[in-house]
Amino acid sequence: MKLVLLRHGESEWNRENLFTGWADVDLSETGREEAKTAGQLLRQNGFDFDVCYTSYLKRAINTLNLVLEEMDREWLPVIKSWKLNERHYGALQGLNKSETAQKYGEDQVKIWRRSFDVRPPVLETEDERNPALLEQYRGISHSDLPLCESLKDTIARALPYYEKVIYEDMKQGKRVLVAAHGNSIRALVKTFDNLSEEEIMEVNIPTGIPLVYEFNDQGKVIKKYYLGDEEYIKAKINKVSNQGKAAV
Amino acid sequence: MKLVLLRHGESEWNRENLFTGWADVDLSETGREEAKTAGQLLRQNGFDFDVCYTSYLKRAINTLNLVLEEMDREWLPVIKSWKLNERHYGALQGLNKSETAQKYGEDQVKIWRRSFDVRPPVLETEDERNPALLEQYRGISHSDLPLCESLKDTIARALPYYEKVIYEDMKQGKRVLVAAHGNSIRALVKTFDNLSEEEIMEVNIPTGIPLVYEFNDQGKVIKKYYLGDEEYIKAKINKVSNQGKAAV
Repeated sequence: MKLVLLRHGESEWNRENLFTGWADVDLSETGREEAKTAGQLLRQNGFDFDVCYTSYLKRAINTLNLVLEEMDREWLPVIKSWKLNERHYGALQGLNKSETAQKYGEDQVKIWRRSFDVRPPVLETEDERNPALLEQYRGISHSDLPLCESLKDTIARALPYYEKVIYEDMKQGKRVLVAAHGNSIRALVKTFDNLSEEEIMEVNIPTGIPLVYEFNDQGKVIKKYYLGDEEYIKAKINKVSNQGKAAV
Repeated sequence: MKLVLLRHGESEWNRENLFTGWADVDLSETGREEAKTAGQLLRQNGFDFDVCYTSYLKRAINTLNLVLEEMDREWLPVIKSWKLNERHYGALQGLNKSETAQKYGEDQVKIWRRSFDVRPPVLETEDERNPALLEQYRGISHSDLPLCESLKDTIARALPYYEKVIYEDMKQGKRVLVAAHGNSIRALVKTFDNLSEEEIMEVNIPTGIPLVYEFNDQGKVIKKYYLGDEEYIKAKINKVSNQGKAAV
């Protein structure tokens, strides 16, 4: 069994270094190019898929669309779920790093960034960013929707979706591509690589680089690798790490 | 109940006036603009959807993607089915009008164009255009896939898909958008408008103009209209009619 995970390319807000979370911002031109490169890499390496999963957020959906276009696979089924969304960054969404430090203090920002189970400030229910007030989530029970999330919370909704839905497809022999976000991908990587809470905080998922997992019949990981030029991948991982973007 | 039908914008081959059918050619730049305009029209007129259907062909899929982008509705579920594909044009696919006339005679071309149940020349099973040989249709039973189709054949596979799948969604109160092709849309229009075989041949579906049907609870049509400026729509319908593109 094979599974490919792909973090969306740079978004308009990544570039401005704003906390994004569930804010539905589109890819930047750089992000679109990253997505196309990912599609070319997959095609050149002989990858093919039977079903694709993505989130409700357009930066992931459009990444997937561009990948499918490059692979000449527009016709593949695509399933969208909010369970694969980025971590919800609560009241921090839309703030930049310096605004956040000014408002909450630098030490507090460090805690939010580096801790596994500390939640960012919660959204007020009447805040227009509350998912329960958005058309985008109108089909979902309000009690399921977060007002903020720790990484632990993100894992608690993304991992069961993998186990109950995506893994079922894999067991049927389907080749699956997941186009998602830094933290929803971390939820899977933590499990696949059997990482501790501290270890997963140190893992930076590079944007636009297909991450391939191969499993045996019991669902145990037997191989893991990124697709593409090694130096390019290293530079990408360091870029994420240095900008502290993994947590954004 | 409301249903919106949308014929894809101009493709690369529409422009060159080639028989397209199941050949998977992309939208031209004009076609992309038509799709965006359709999305803007839907948004401006307050339309919204719960589910979208499209074919396996990228000119329809990309039309839908552009519409959803303009409507800020990328997150809507999209279901792709080959049952909504364009009429399969058999061995004519890829030929232009004058080549076809030279090869088969002008009178024969007229018959293929204007008759309801006469099939174009069938593809040889070893022809590389045979859908059974294409990756794109690998999930589908070979006996279901055509080697050519009359309009009657197209209706015979598109209409049951509407009745068994799309209409079920509508009965549950879902608002449905279908992005498809001239002849798969004709299959529905023939039924909705209760047209004879001769009458449906005279109906030209303009590209990129949302066609809205409203139904009562019994599924009977109570209202039908195109969205947009009347003169623009007329010009579009005439363009299709003059170029004989309805049959392409």
